[in-house]
Amino acid sequence: MELKINFSGRAHKYNQAEIDAVIKAMQNADPLTQGRYLKEFEAAFSNYIKAQYSFALCNATAALELAAELCQFKTGDEVIIPSHTFTSSAYPFMKKGARIVWADIDLEIGVVTAQTIKENITPRTKAIVVVHLYGYTVDMPEIMKIAKEHNLLVIEDAAQSLGSEINGRKSGTFGDFGIFSFQSHKNITTLGEGGMLIVKNKKHAQIIPMLRHNGHCDFSFKKEEYWLPAMGNVDLPELNGEILWPNNYCLGEIECALGVKLLKRIDRINEEKRERAVYFIDELKKYTELKFSRIDNKRHTYHLLVARFKNGTRNEFIRQMFYEKGIKCIVQYCPLNRYPAYQKAGFGEANCHNADEFFDNMVSFPFHHWMSEGDFKYMLSSTKDVLEALRR
Amino acid sequence: MELKINFSGRAHKYNQAEIDAVIKAMQNADPLTQGRYLKEFEAAFSNYIKAQYSFALCNATAALELAAELCQFKTGDEVIIPSHTFTSSAYPFMKKGARIVWADIDLEIGVVTAQTIKENITPRTKAIVVVHLYGYTVDMPEIMKIAKEHNLLVIEDAAQSLGSEINGRKSGTFGDFGIFSFQSHKNITTLGEGGMLIVKNKKHAQIIPMLRHNGHCDFSFKKEEYWLPAMGNVDLPELNGEILWPNNYCLGEIECALGVKLLKRIDRINEEKRERAVYFIDELKKYTELKFSRIDNKRHTYHLLVARFKNGTRNEFIRQMFYEKGIKCIVQYCPLNRYPAYQKAGFGEANCHNADEFFDNMVSFPFHHWMSEGDFKYMLSSTKDVLEALRR
Repeated sequence: MELKINFSGRAHKYNQAEIDAVIKAMQNADPLTQGRYLKEFEAAFSNYIKAQYSFALCNATAALELAAELCQFKTGDEVIIPSHTFTSSAYPFMKKGARIVWADIDLEIGVVTAQTIKENITPRTKAIVVVHLYGYTVDMPEIMKIAKEHNLLVIEDAAQSLGSEINGRKSGTFGDFGIFSFQSHKNITTLGEGGMLIVKNKKHAQIIPMLRHNGHCDFSFKKEEYWLPAMGNVDLPELNGEILWPNNYCLGEIECALGVKLLKRIDRINEEKRERAVYFIDELKKYTELKFSRIDNKRHTYHLLVARFKNGTRNEFIRQMFYEKGIKCIVQYCPLNRYPAYQKAGFGEANCHNADEFFDNMVSFPFHHWMSEGDFKYMLSSTKDVLEALRR
Repeated sequence: MELKINFSGRAHKYNQAEIDAVIKAMQNADPLTQGRYLKEFEAAFSNYIKAQYSFALCNATAALELAAELCQFKTGDEVIIPSHTFTSSAYPFMKKGARIVWADIDLEIGVVTAQTIKENITPRTKAIVVVHLYGYTVDMPEIMKIAKEHNLLVIEDAAQSLGSEINGRKSGTFGDFGIFSFQSHKNITTLGEGGMLIVKNKKHAQIIPMLRHNGHCDFSFKKEEYWLPAMGNVDLPELNGEILWPNNYCLGEIECALGVKLLKRIDRINEEKRERAVYFIDELKKYTELKFSRIDNKRHTYHLLVARFKNGTRNEFIRQMFYEKGIKCIVQYCPLNRYPAYQKAGFGEANCHNADEFFDNMVSFPFHHWMSEGDFKYMLSSTKDVLEALRR
């Protein structure tokens, strides 16, 4: 069997302007890290997303690690996290000592709701992680109300939803922390790795550059000469009377220069993906055994095109798509409580029946932005063929 | 005053073959992270350095963080680290709970010796960090003898010394862990950020891919279908019966593709830098108040060109070079015990008089590989001018 459509590990191709930006930065940037392109990228990102403090990082996991560090969990503190998400949404919180409580999802949209979060709040809850999985914006206005009521920190994992919005406000800008990813598979990627952390609290914003860059900072006094007492200072930032440990989470200048260009194109990429997704969904609407989330507006970026089988034929569908049509559909986001990692750490228990049902019946179609029109049409007709065959 | 020669933040320019490799990977790589270029880069690196297990990482600090994690320090365990080094050589060990004991340097070479390490060994010493600072290879054969005698783990920080060697063996390949940096300022740089960790222990080698990539691993059984029970597994690696926490320390494919090309050029870059350094040193030999370390062989990469003033005129020298000649010399590697970071953490005490004396009298000349011959000659004549002026 020849594979005709793979599940690509890269979401988009680069256009000439983007390649030129990389070449130019390779030739001219000095330094190649922590320089002017970093500032440009962060400013362009803040402007696009409408946020005050944006910090470019080596990846989105680093953004989640920093958010988890800034939450300053104490023994017994709980954090509510959807079980149906990528592992990076969860493990940084475990590393920082929080107790994970898994939130279920809504079966129709594949993400958490205000209700599934609310039912997990206890007096020990300190924070909630909301993931705009697949590119669909969770109902943040409702969730922020609950968070305010219970005095909870909110980490918005918008790794898959850059550019999506609700009530005209971008996902990632509601919570205390907004996390964005520019990894290879995301709607825009800064050469395969990259991330952004946005924060609301000025105290956080002041120390993040140090936490990102090995504790480097200015001296507290004006230096007489540029090299005395040293070129720069190294300190441990403090927050609420506690010392925090630094890291090296820097994103290189070339990636930042590229990121500035990609931000000009993200809305177009999202629109093109959404248009295709909605077309695909509408073309399949008579196959009610396959349930998509159809959103014909900016609330969904369709980072991924997923659907859920309601008749138990998911495995046979993927099998026929793969072996008979040469199309590699995949299955994503195994509920984290089912992985050995979380079981070993004591978080193997979850009351997330929807997440289990969704995962056990979901399919994720190849949906890279650079898929040719011919391949897209072939995937659509093949899907129809296989669904018809499964009905017989 | 017009600045004629800045202290550049980037060590080298890219040639057309390197730019072409980046363009090609940008166009063709799929995925853009954790793919075939990673394997190629690691294989090329292992081949160049003559090591068995090489792991490309997002930066050298990540390599040090992993090494520190794999040391599995217990309360009270001590690690010997030179006080005269970059902060990333030290803080990852502090984060992992080790007690830092600062080792002094030899005044003539600016690095630790077997002797300065030996005098700090106690029954609690578990590991030593040796830094080949400035590109000069520390006497590893002697140090490995001591390490073996006392059963110590050796972390070789070769961030600045890629390609340097002693007795025909490359720096970074003697210890249990070898750390390499491809940061902007290093002799080769993978777009501003990048690093490599080499290890000797097969048990370490087996779990590093998981520690690097969010705990991702294979299932322990052969899967019937590629998507069942999930696309991949997530686990917490164990070492000596203890669970370790994962990270995201991935280096993108474009950087790896570039790294493969750069390895073809590192020996030439090192030779060209060494040739210039030796010429510069020889031209200044009558100024005995300025002491260089002159090594006319592969033991030194001359990542940096540094010297020490023996007559207390360092500050006036830098001042005149800057204000009268427009050349920005700098001062590097403030003994870490003098920074607030280490003082706050309880490591503000050190018995490192040579490190203090070296730092307080050292100068680091601009020494980027792409410095023009004209600039280089101007720096040499300016140095002579200022040294003459200071003698009057």
